[in-house]
Order: sequence, then C-alpha cells, then structure tokens
Amino acid sequence: MAMETGFHVAVVGATGAVGEQMLKTLAERNFPISKLTLLSSKRSAGKTITFKEEEIVIQEATPDSFEGVQLALFSAGGSVSKALAPQAVKRGAIVVDNTSAFRMDAEIPLVVPEVNEADLQKHNGIIANPNCSTIQMVVALEPIRKKYGLKKVVVSTYQAVSGAGANAIKEMKDQTKAILAGEDFTPEILPCGSDKKHYQIAFNAVPQIDKFQENGYTFEEMKMINETKKIMHLPNLHVAATCVRIPVETGHSESVYFETEEAGLTASEMKAMLKDAPGVVLEDDINEQLYPMATNCVNKNDVFVGRVRQDLDNENGFHMWVVSDNLLKGAAWNSVQISESLVKLGLLK
Amino acid sequence: MAMETGFHVAVVGATGAVGEQMLKTLAERNFPISKLTLLSSKRSAGKTITFKEEEIVIQEATPDSFEGVQLALFSAGGSVSKALAPQAVKRGAIVVDNTSAFRMDAEIPLVVPEVNEADLQKHNGIIANPNCSTIQMVVALEPIRKKYGLKKVVVSTYQAVSGAGANAIKEMKDQTKAILAGEDFTPEILPCGSDKKHYQIAFNAVPQIDKFQENGYTFEEMKMINETKKIMHLPNLHVAATCVRIPVETGHSESVYFETEEAGLTASEMKAMLKDAPGVVLEDDINEQLYPMATNCVNKNDVFVGRVRQDLDNENGFHMWVVSDNLLKGAAWNSVQISESLVKLGLLK
Repeated sequence: MAMETGFHVAVVGATGAVGEQMLKTLAERNFPISKLTLLSSKRSAGKTITFKEEEIVIQEATPDSFEGVQLALFSAGGSVSKALAPQAVKRGAIVVDNTSAFRMDAEIPLVVPEVNEADLQKHNGIIANPNCSTIQMVVALEPIRKKYGLKKVVVSTYQAVSGAGANAIKEMKDQTKAILAGEDFTPEILPCGSDKKHYQIAFNAVPQIDKFQENGYTFEEMKMINETKKIMHLPNLHVAATCVRIPVETGHSESVYFETEEAGLTASEMKAMLKDAPGVVLEDDINEQLYPMATNCVNKNDVFVGRVRQDLDNENGFHMWVVSDNLLKGAAWNSVQISESLVKLGLLK
Repeated sequence: MAMETGFHVAVVGATGAVGEQMLKTLAERNFPISKLTLLSSKRSAGKTITFKEEEIVIQEATPDSFEGVQLALFSAGGSVSKALAPQAVKRGAIVVDNTSAFRMDAEIPLVVPEVNEADLQKHNGIIANPNCSTIQMVVALEPIRKKYGLKKVVVSTYQAVSGAGANAIKEMKDQTKAILAGEDFTPEILPCGSDKKHYQIAFNAVPQIDKFQENGYTFEEMKMINETKKIMHLPNLHVAATCVRIPVETGHSESVYFETEEAGLTASEMKAMLKDAPGVVLEDDINEQLYPMATNCVNKNDVFVGRVRQDLDNENGFHMWVVSDNLLKGAAWNSVQISESLVKLGLLK
C-alpha cells in the first residue's frame, strides 16, 4: 500500500522494543503519514522493516536524516535525543521524545494528553513523553485532582522488565529457564545496565530501577516524583515513590495511596467518577474478584484501575491499584497520542 | 540419637511447608525435646519423618494425641487449630498456633518476641503466631516506635507463593514452564484456594491474598492492619496495607512508608538505630547497590531492612524496604522463638 496524504514522520530507534510498538501503533491508528523514515544506530542500519505492507530500509540517524521530516518520534536513549533532537527541530520537525533527556526542562512541555494536552501549545519544537510509570499514575490521578483536589501521593511500583529493553526480557527468561533446570547463570543487565552490580530478576523483587541519586532515591523514583508535579501543574504536591522491578514481561502495576483536598468522599463516589475518566478503565468488583492485572493489560492502550478503597484511618485517604502496558500508554501509545493531539490542534504543519 | 532432657513437643501439620521448617528449626536451635510427637491429617498419618536421625511415625491428630504433650506447635490450618488447640490446652499443653484462628482474640497473646515477649506472661494456654507479612514489618517498626514514636504506616507487599503452601509453589513453577514452552495451562489454586476464581501467578502481580472482606480490603490486608496494632500495643496507630502476590518462591518484600512522632530525624540516624535493632540486619548502601532482596533472605532467620530514606515532603516521613523468609521469621522461626521465650521465662513446665 502506498503512503497517503499526511506528514513526513521519522521514528528514531525503530528496532527497539518501544520503536516496534510505535510503528505498530502508528499503523493501527492509521496516523496520516506521507513518508516514513526509519532511523537507528549504525549497527541496525540497512535492515528492513515492513510498515503497512511496504518494506522500509532503516538508515543510520544523522543530523541530515531529518531534512523534510515534520514529526520525529525519538526512542533511542537519552544521548541520541540530546544530540539529534535539536538537529531535527532546526530542520523544521516537531520532536516527541520518549527519553528522559528533556523532561524536566522548563521550556519543554511534558505531556500526557488526558492530563495536560494544552501544554502542547507552548512547545518550542520538542515535546517530552514522560516516564512509563509516571504516565499511568497521572492518568488515574488527574480526574481525582480535578474533582476533589489532591494533596499527597505515595506509590510503590511493580514494574515489568520490558521497560529495561529487549535484552532484559531475554535475561529474565534465560534466568528463569536456568533456575527451573537447576543450572547456573550470571546476571549481566538488570537492575540497571550501566550500573556496577547486576542481580537476579527471575523469582525475585529488586528495589532498584535506574541509578541511585545522592538523596537515596533512584532516578526512576525521582522521575515519578518530579514528572508528576510538572505534568499535573502541582509543584507543591507531596509525592513519594518506591520503584521495584519484578519478574513480569510487560505491564507495570502500582499500589497508590493518595489524599484528596475534599473530605467525606466515599469509595463508591471515587469509583463512579473514575469509571468515566478519560483513558481509564475501572476494573473493580470484589465480589467477582475483578481487579487489574499485568497479564490482562498487554496490547491495550488503557490505564486499568481497581482495588479502590478508602483508608480506614484518614477520611481523605484512598488506595488504588493501577496497571497499564508500559510499552503502550507508558511509551509508544502516549507518543502517538501526543502526535494525534498535535494534528488535532493544528500544531503539526 | 536419643531424645534428651527437655519437653514433650508436638508438631501439628508436620508435613506442610511450615511444619517442615519448624522441625528443621527445632533441630538447628537444639530446642530441648524429650519426646517429639508428629501429627497430621488422616491422609499423611503413617508416613515417617527423620528428626535428628530418629525416624518418627506421623500420627493422625486427635484430642487424645495431646496426652502428656507440654508444647504443641500448630500449623495445619485454622479449622484444625480451632478444633484441637483447646483440646491440647485441656490436657496441659501450651499451644503456639501459626494460624489466624485466635490471633485477634483479646484473651490470647499475639507475639513477636522482639516486640512483645512480655505478653507471653498473660497467656491462657494458647499463644498466637502472627501473619508472616505482619511479623517482618513489626520487627522493623518496633525499634522506630520505641525511639521516635510511630503515627502512621502505609505498606505495599510483594509476597512469595510459598505463603500459600506447597501446591502454590508447584502451580507457579508449572505455569512458568508452560509459558516458556508456549503451552496452555489452567490456574487452579492462586490467588486463594478457597475463592471462586483463579489467576495466573507466573510473570504476573496479583493484588489479592486471601478473601475479600466487605470493606474492600482482603483478609490478608486486615490481618496486617489489626495484628500490627495488637502486637505493638498501638490501637490508634494509622496502618494501611495493600497485599500483592508476585512470582517469588520464598521471601516476602515490603515497601513501607511510616511517619514518626518525633520530627527532625535524619535517614542516617534512622539507619544507625536500625543497625542495632534486635532481629534486624541493615543492608543499606546505595554506593554498593546494597539492599535486601528475596533471593538473599532464604533460610535466614533475620529481617533485612534497606532503602531507608527520608520523605522529600514530610520531615516525619520515611521509606524503607523490608525483606524476610516468610517460612522462617514469618512462621516457623517465630514459633520456635516463642517456644524458646517460654522456656526462658519459665512458663513451659
């Protein structure tokens, strides 16, 4: 099928776990593409990828790759984004960047369309896509903030290995097989490829995602804390996070405690409101043992919310369980959704 | 080796996952036993178990099994304890019960020796052993309460399948093998054998342990909430829990947020204090990526604490990661430790 009327789109990091989901999502959503440029590191250049029955040769990403590109979706690591995103902007592209490179830059909007789509209006060429574990949480928290006000959030995550890339998935599976067969193995990637020590992820829970910061929090935890405040426009919100990797392939789960400004709400009111919230699917019926689970969220764009219940001591306190596909709403789908918003708002030219 | 001077001890549920650990721990600790009676359901009666090189035939547990028994360790389910623990007491035994049958009975001490050993003095024949996920948390919280006061606790758990018994371990391993081989399977046990629906545990996180209560919390969550208040003698402590099963064989992990009465503490002070706390091993050095993990706690009696850090918004707030072997400190070791305390206090006659 020939490309139709639309935009010249580039995907940087086309061969990665997220890049693959981006292409799948662009195709599924029938995003208006007139030309698709697939870019990667030198190592993957020359390979071909089929998009809507058309074979496309992957090219090495260089500044000149962005000539004529109108929309560039980056997901090839922070250093690639830092080097090439400004080059793409210089050549007239709008960049939607899936790395942490620009997220906390005051001049760059950090966007989850259900929460702060209007921030896209203020873009200077680059729009940052938030961290996976942040996105699904703010989708669930925003309708609560909007209706009842939000004072405090304490989250503990149960994060899937696909967030650490295809090599991490392979490591988890190889380790699992080795353990079941009684064989030895050497952890080499998780919890964090660029850190000194590596630990078993199979049949384990590892309380480290990304590197430690001087304040004792990991970078992943600080991402959740800082990005949540920025996206929700709540610089004084109390947010705390503990980020944990568990042996799940795809689908992040989160145990979220939050306190509302408004008092006297019931769990029923909270659930009725969440049921109609954009991007949220409420799965909550204890009589039917209905609650979100990682295994049920894969390949879906929604954020699933359940186990909604009032704190037993604090009438402003509630607990909920939030699950989403970390490669989709946590990455590829949110990037494509931002792209759709750019089209809708007439910002993509 | 012949039995030596000591007590006539009975173990009820000798063939279960916890029963096995109890026998191992009694042997390792060289608990003074003059006679060991092993009891079980009719199904396992007649089998033999070797204890300190002596073969012992398992008998079916009946009221008369407790004639002459001085100490009876129960771990065969709540209904067995309800039926037989009073019979054992009637015959002069002290019962240490590892089920939830008597834990919230006001007349029955619920004991974690590091926290409330003195409560043993008030026993009326039965002493309850708390829930696994509660025990490890209160061992870490008690030194904090003692030194700084404790106002609020919010815990999210990462619980191992061995807490649901040997069948649950087998189910997790069989499912894991099936998934890796691309084969079908039917969940039959987890999240809760006696509940209606069963879900995949392999490569998943399931936010249900035990059955749901009318208030929206699971029984496991209510155990953590109510038992913590009882053990710590803090009826007004704010405690909230979200209990989650993950694909780990043994070793419960817990993400614990807590607020102290005293203000102005630092994480360093907190760590220095926890380092010397009874039953606690502090594993906390972010420069060396040192933190507790389930895989490292197995077969150890201690409660491992790490990731201790101050909340970024609340100077009374702290976070920590608490890990322990759920079959040992969470069950068998705590029961044997209670038994040792009974001997030490001269209560076992």
